[in-house]
Amino acid sequence: MYTVGIDLGGTNIAAGICDENLNIIVKGSVPTLASRVPELIVKDMAALVDSLCNQAHISHSEISYVGIAAPGSVNPDTGYVEYSNNIQMSNFPICEVFKKYSPIDRVYIANDANAAALGEALAGAAKGADVSVMITLGTGVGGGVIIGGKIFAGGVNFSGTELGHTVIVSGGRQCTCGRRGCWEAYSSATALSKMTKEKMTELELKGIKSLMHGMQRPDGSVSARVAFSAMKEGDTFAKEVCDEYIRYLAEGITNMVNIFQPHVLCIGGGVCNEKEYLTVPLTEIVERDQYTRTGKNKTKIVTATLGNDAGIIGAASLGR
Amino acid sequence: MYTVGIDLGGTNIAAGICDENLNIIVKGSVPTLASRVPELIVKDMAALVDSLCNQAHISHSEISYVGIAAPGSVNPDTGYVEYSNNIQMSNFPICEVFKKYSPIDRVYIANDANAAALGEALAGAAKGADVSVMITLGTGVGGGVIIGGKIFAGGVNFSGTELGHTVIVSGGRQCTCGRRGCWEAYSSATALSKMTKEKMTELELKGIKSLMHGMQRPDGSVSARVAFSAMKEGDTFAKEVCDEYIRYLAEGITNMVNIFQPHVLCIGGGVCNEKEYLTVPLTEIVERDQYTRTGKNKTKIVTATLGNDAGIIGAASLGR
Repeated sequence: MYTVGIDLGGTNIAAGICDENLNIIVKGSVPTLASRVPELIVKDMAALVDSLCNQAHISHSEISYVGIAAPGSVNPDTGYVEYSNNIQMSNFPICEVFKKYSPIDRVYIANDANAAALGEALAGAAKGADVSVMITLGTGVGGGVIIGGKIFAGGVNFSGTELGHTVIVSGGRQCTCGRRGCWEAYSSATALSKMTKEKMTELELKGIKSLMHGMQRPDGSVSARVAFSAMKEGDTFAKEVCDEYIRYLAEGITNMVNIFQPHVLCIGGGVCNEKEYLTVPLTEIVERDQYTRTGKNKTKIVTATLGNDAGIIGAASLGR
Repeated sequence: MYTVGIDLGGTNIAAGICDENLNIIVKGSVPTLASRVPELIVKDMAALVDSLCNQAHISHSEISYVGIAAPGSVNPDTGYVEYSNNIQMSNFPICEVFKKYSPIDRVYIANDANAAALGEALAGAAKGADVSVMITLGTGVGGGVIIGGKIFAGGVNFSGTELGHTVIVSGGRQCTCGRRGCWEAYSSATALSKMTKEKMTELELKGIKSLMHGMQRPDGSVSARVAFSAMKEGDTFAKEVCDEYIRYLAEGITNMVNIFQPHVLCIGGGVCNEKEYLTVPLTEIVERDQYTRTGKNKTKIVTATLGNDAGIIGAASLGR
């Protein structure tokens, strides 16, 4: 038997058919066109599954279930997307509507960050870990927690594990959530770009040019890669930016280690491409600062391995 | 059938026999004399249980198991206290040793803060909650997390949920754990005393006497109750201390709500005696600041109801 995972994003609907070992047999995607009424989006999700079945010569009867990873607050018990601001779904019975357009009658749902964490826990960087935490360093800082092979999504509202929205600098940088000093405001890719730009401005005011200045976009903006790239080429100012970024990232990760003591803490999102430039100094700080320094076992800090497939694989595992 | 809960503290060994509804039938305590070799302590634990059985006319065969709540890192799978600094146990097989001195052959173990959280979840302020978080505001800030009627103790080393050791003010007040800015350094009873004393010193330097000054001990030190007591009598300077204390407490609690979204967040320890003076302003800030403000359901913030019995009742529930 096979299972299907659908990762419903703000830009694309990605889907894949997985075998029992969670290998993706076939995958594809179509645009979400997020401003449409939700039912049209769901109809396209079902059509995408049909087309993947055709491509792989798999009949619907060979699919044991479909799992959907959706952004926002989702209720796995009722199959509703309770609220999402990326796609226009509010109190929307996504699982029921999917069944209107597909003969597959077992449909599960989870939040997308949680599904990605589940994917990495079952088939990726956190494989074999009983407790794992995934943080995704992108536009924001997303979080997912897996305990005993299952998503822990929090108690009320199924929308917990908002790990990025934990304050690490009370009264600090403004966060999009309304609070000040959230981990997200220091450790997202967005925050890294911002810190890079601030350092460049500081240098410009002193009349200093760094390697980072040669890496900015024509409009003067910088990507989150600039500081690490310039540091790798020996720029000491860029190293200051990276060191500060890693220091705040370690602050939040140490907090998570003290709370969850995960066997594996997995870092995803664009910033994880820095690999050991990120994980080596990070691990050093976290091992020094964590509460239980005497423990025989330590949390392994690793970068994600499944990339965009994590959400598909996690969704395809929801019915296990 | 009955169960026994033993709360092994640094000062006293408290124990109780519970019925199937988790009512304590009989309880008692003896001094721990913590500097003794651990085996003597365990021998006294077994003797205390014998004496409670005699008092209540309950035979050992009517006891289905004994649960032990111990300070430090404990491994529930092996029955070892792996490390504790309050009692001198290091890699100590407490469950096995207990059986040497008692005919009761089912013995369970948990960390004491976790056992107290379980007690409140099963029989106290968090009764009926599927996910609950307990924080204890005492010398430090202790934490316990209950998911589905079971203790979540973290992955590696069974010593997670050190909720007080999450940094909320990066680079802030020195914490006993070595880091700076831990929640514990702002929200423990110890921190409240310290903030009270700092405000009093600030006022003295300006030649101002507040109601707090009349409440200090002969040696000039102040208890954690002084600021709240003086505020209740109308002292505006004391209110400033309480407001600041509650602001930091809310910062940490909002973090926990964003992570766990517990149905109930239960506050124990000495400071919880302030009851609604604490919970009303706290709830207001947490409901304003939490990430999922649109959720239909909210975390209930309550004060603990079982007091010192929470550890006994939690321990007596470990074999459920």
